Amino acid sequence: MRGAAKITKGRSPAGKLAFGQLDKHLGYFVRRMQIWIFQDFIRTLAPVKIRPAQYSVLLIIEANPGRSQSAIGQTLGIERARLARMLHELERRKWVARHANGSDARSHSLYMTAQGERALAKIKSLAEKHEAQLAKLLGPKRREEMMSALREFG
Amino acid sequence: MRGAAKITKGRSPAGKLAFGQLDKHLGYFVRRMQIWIFQDFIRTLAPVKIRPAQYSVLLIIEANPGRSQSAIGQTLGIERARLARMLHELERRKWVARHANGSDARSHSLYMTAQGERALAKIKSLAEKHEAQLAKLLGPKRREEMMSALREFG
Repeated sequence: MRGAAKITKGRSPAGKLAFGQLDKHLGYFVRRMQIWIFQDFIRTLAPVKIRPAQYSVLLIIEANPGRSQSAIGQTLGIERARLARMLHELERRKWVARHANGSDARSHSLYMTAQGERALAKIKSLAEKHEAQLAKLLGPKRREEMMSALREFG
Repeated sequence: MRGAAKITKGRSPAGKLAFGQLDKHLGYFVRRMQIWIFQDFIRTLAPVKIRPAQYSVLLIIEANPGRSQSAIGQTLGIERARLARMLHELERRKWVARHANGSDARSHSLYMTAQGERALAKIKSLAEKHEAQLAKLLGPKRREEMMSALREFG
């Protein structure tokens, strides 16, 4: 498996094993690629210590100021308890603030702070660098094809 | 985001939030698809209680009898401690046996047991069902395109 071997950069497979039926499973290759992408993201964004899921939450809050935790969780498919922990961390870093709308914490409105917006500018420029690295690896044409296939997935 | 909304089956996004810059990140869509695939795999293979990573290890042992733990780990990109735990579980289920080659546990040779081969026949038929569900969702043409793009990734 040329592709998979290249994904595990820095490792040299001992003797090249056969993939057997694994070679027919799309999920295996999607998972390998996802791991590669996330590792590159985490490495490239190390100066700002942010993980892919946190970044996606920041972008959604930025694009939808004042929306609730549950609306964000539904949009991103992040489960309630995990999102609550992530928001707690983003509030601790003073990047995100929540304003009460009623008695239910999940209905609180979420906003970027000014500090969060400044941090996000830096984060976005590193995320663009990561995306450029990925585009270089895939080639721009293949990247566009995959993007289009995945966006319409379902 | 039509695609992403459809991936979170059973959830109806409250009011359709904007995706902002997230819409430009391939990693986001790859991750959504990977989660969808793994959830379908786990659901479809529930009768045999097996997870995608365990299945990949079984297929590699089947296709490469007598190889070492470290060769398998390198091929699949699974880190040593995690693979050791997985193999321990597969031995507990009497699906996999290891035969000593020397003093180093990592150089032991791994084999499927007869019981493991019988279990794997059933597992494979359910994995084929999962793959057919995925092909139906993607359409056979798009599935082939993605497979080809991902195999050559790198």
